[in-house]
Amino acid sequence: MNTFPDIPLNQIDEVVNRSWQAFQEYRTLPLVKRAVLLRAIAAELEDMGDAWLQAAHEETHLPEPRLRTERARTIFQLESYALACAKGDWMRISIDSALPDRNPPRPDLRKMMIPLGPVIVFGASNFPYAYSTAGGDTASALAAGCSVIVKAHPAHPQTSMLAAQAIERAVQKTGIPAGVFQHIYGASFEVGKQLVQHPRSAAVGFTGSFSGGKQLFDWANQRPHPIPVFAEMGSINPIFLLPDHLQQQATVLAEKIAASVTLGVGQFCTNPGLLVAIASEGLEVFRSKLIECLRQTVPAEMLHGGIQRAYLEKSAQLREQPGVETHLAATQGPALVATSQLTQVQAKQFLADRSLHQEVFGPATLLVVCANTDELKEVAACIEGQLTCSVFGSDQDLHQYRTLCEELTHRCGRLNFNSVPTGVEVLQSSHHGGPFPATTDARFTAVGSDAILRFARPICYQNCPEEMLPDELKSDNPLQIWRKVNGEWRNGSMG
Amino acid sequence: MNTFPDIPLNQIDEVVNRSWQAFQEYRTLPLVKRAVLLRAIAAELEDMGDAWLQAAHEETHLPEPRLRTERARTIFQLESYALACAKGDWMRISIDSALPDRNPPRPDLRKMMIPLGPVIVFGASNFPYAYSTAGGDTASALAAGCSVIVKAHPAHPQTSMLAAQAIERAVQKTGIPAGVFQHIYGASFEVGKQLVQHPRSAAVGFTGSFSGGKQLFDWANQRPHPIPVFAEMGSINPIFLLPDHLQQQATVLAEKIAASVTLGVGQFCTNPGLLVAIASEGLEVFRSKLIECLRQTVPAEMLHGGIQRAYLEKSAQLREQPGVETHLAATQGPALVATSQLTQVQAKQFLADRSLHQEVFGPATLLVVCANTDELKEVAACIEGQLTCSVFGSDQDLHQYRTLCEELTHRCGRLNFNSVPTGVEVLQSSHHGGPFPATTDARFTAVGSDAILRFARPICYQNCPEEMLPDELKSDNPLQIWRKVNGEWRNGSMG
Repeated sequence: MNTFPDIPLNQIDEVVNRSWQAFQEYRTLPLVKRAVLLRAIAAELEDMGDAWLQAAHEETHLPEPRLRTERARTIFQLESYALACAKGDWMRISIDSALPDRNPPRPDLRKMMIPLGPVIVFGASNFPYAYSTAGGDTASALAAGCSVIVKAHPAHPQTSMLAAQAIERAVQKTGIPAGVFQHIYGASFEVGKQLVQHPRSAAVGFTGSFSGGKQLFDWANQRPHPIPVFAEMGSINPIFLLPDHLQQQATVLAEKIAASVTLGVGQFCTNPGLLVAIASEGLEVFRSKLIECLRQTVPAEMLHGGIQRAYLEKSAQLREQPGVETHLAATQGPALVATSQLTQVQAKQFLADRSLHQEVFGPATLLVVCANTDELKEVAACIEGQLTCSVFGSDQDLHQYRTLCEELTHRCGRLNFNSVPTGVEVLQSSHHGGPFPATTDARFTAVGSDAILRFARPICYQNCPEEMLPDELKSDNPLQIWRKVNGEWRNGSMG
Repeated sequence: MNTFPDIPLNQIDEVVNRSWQAFQEYRTLPLVKRAVLLRAIAAELEDMGDAWLQAAHEETHLPEPRLRTERARTIFQLESYALACAKGDWMRISIDSALPDRNPPRPDLRKMMIPLGPVIVFGASNFPYAYSTAGGDTASALAAGCSVIVKAHPAHPQTSMLAAQAIERAVQKTGIPAGVFQHIYGASFEVGKQLVQHPRSAAVGFTGSFSGGKQLFDWANQRPHPIPVFAEMGSINPIFLLPDHLQQQATVLAEKIAASVTLGVGQFCTNPGLLVAIASEGLEVFRSKLIECLRQTVPAEMLHGGIQRAYLEKSAQLREQPGVETHLAATQGPALVATSQLTQVQAKQFLADRSLHQEVFGPATLLVVCANTDELKEVAACIEGQLTCSVFGSDQDLHQYRTLCEELTHRCGRLNFNSVPTGVEVLQSSHHGGPFPATTDARFTAVGSDAILRFARPICYQNCPEEMLPDELKSDNPLQIWRKVNGEWRNGSMG
């Protein structure tokens, strides 16, 4: 699919060094300049109009309305990170004044965030805009003050090129050093490895499969100087359906969940691949309705042949596991079309067979039927780290299953109540992350302005003369940033 | 020296499982309860009086005044983390309210920090109190809501035991589950490995050598589920002596720096092992005075035989490197005594020979003489990640060397102006960390209340009913925590 030539391996050194050179200048620019760049990128993306939509549609087979929404999200993301960047809260500034009369005298200490250096970004195939070339990793790295090298995703090379050109125009128009953003192609394993292991690469952002993310993580940690990798990888996003709610709302619930399972042909990292419930009449009603809804969903084309093949293979493997009952089997339609799948297994079998816990990327979900509350809790306690867990329950259920909910907070990055996991808001309060293997570092988010923190670190200035301080730390607070000064939040001068 | 038996390897599983069990309960306790525990530990340490001092003096040979200061620091640290823990700012709470009329409706999102799980702590030999059993790693892990397993440092097993017993008394008196803190011995390699690689271990805190910290980091990353390691390792803490200041203040400067180099027999992670200056008359005066001051310093005993041996070996190796001139050679005194060392090398040689960049743990420093400003900047650009860098300069110097100072922020965690690096304040604005190889994760600090963040991660509650929310996130804000609510800082009710 990719007609763009791979970068020759002997040019990677030049690319990373160029990024590093540009970083030397970019990192010193004021926050407002970074915000201007992010807004200029947003404007350039907007200005491309339908050309960018058409390229993405051709390469990903995603329908136009979905692509319009994703494009709007990508533009909003750039604008919201621009706002956050200039506002400066993300720098988590703390100032403790000198106490010259203490014995020994206490120095003046002022702490803020500075960028790490060149960030290598590997985008996702399933979000050609929002998690790709001009997506969240690029936006947050630029907001942090880092330079960026994007390796284009081979599944949408043209879409990626158009985004890169838009960014390059924005860089040029805003007078930012050109090397701050670079875009390269490289389908080979070795390109990724050399980028991640180059001595001047400082961090990695990745969205994709477990095997891809884990490989980058290992390469980064095997360097003489390891660097942080934020890889957002697989997740099965379990939904726990509690008994009273199931009894009362079986039909509505089935409709909601069917819509979430099949949204975007199931090609979301927050797709609910696991449903957990106690055997009951309500569950029977729910299941019948779920099967009906899944059957009625008009099947659509998947992103590319590789994803379709993997979906059909993995969903077939799942059906053949011992104890697995199939209510609806995934089938191949014309071209890249694939239909949804519903399988079922008893909790005992699920607990015994780890292969049932694996992600099937696509519109498939596995219903785990528990004999009782204890089994439900055992299932909750055995699931691996997730981006999200969800609970559907009445007030009565939630009261009764309070400890289950508490347990689930330790399994995921986001806990939903009576709502489906698909749909991730670009907000500071969002957390799109979670314990391994959902991501390689549970302490950071890939979405929302706190994503900037992945690519920054604190520096403390001790006894720095006022005129040598960066504006962010000056006593008169010219940028009016909210700072913690001697333990109190203030956005004015230290006075 | 260690007369306590190693833990049998087959008991490690039980210890970690016990920690994990206790964590299940401890993590649900309110912040104020964690603060009560930390204060109770501080009180128990205080109550031990001279017994604890005596044990530490016998095991570490550190003089009593130094130990009294370190004890006070350790107690202050526990109290200040207790305060920070209960205040809750460290949880970085963010709330974005629902917008039900938006299309699609925006959910209610509330984000806070939760603890990671059992933390394995490996203390330092050079700080038997403040960076050891009841030190910063233990205090911050407990504040985060984690359970703790300390592997006692083999160089001060009795001091460690007394601290552990004090913590255990505090745990008992405050009604905290006993397994929240456990203390074990294990000189063998395998004990550390099994602790770090146990499936239920969640994070690692370490202070010590590069080889020790890097080994733990590698073990943690080789797990099927990698876990974060915060290892504070070596640092040579370069000091840049700028020309005008050298000219004006050579004598005073030499006195200050000699005191910093020899403080605690040079056994500080912030010990200045490198001095960088341009050849000048001022430098000659400085050097003569420095030699005089170092000679006059009364030599003292080092921590233990291993450290003394390593110091004498490494300082001898340094003297034998090509181009190294010796002004004062380290010598062995009676028992564990060792004298200080001053060597010198031309910048060209320093730039060419990486072995000269290595830490010599003890009262030794290497003077790098530059021919001109360009060489000084080259030296600054080639040094590895450091805990601290320091600059001594007049106003005129600092104005002239502004880009040097900016460059140094990207080499270290703390940049000092006209002050020596030894001495680390326990304050929120402190940053005791730095780029690899100073630490394994530049994004976190080992000292100051932000150290808590090493052992916590965000969780986001989506559409959570009010009565199911933890107190930290409730709309009426019963804990009066400063939270970001719809983009504004508030410590009251959402009202």
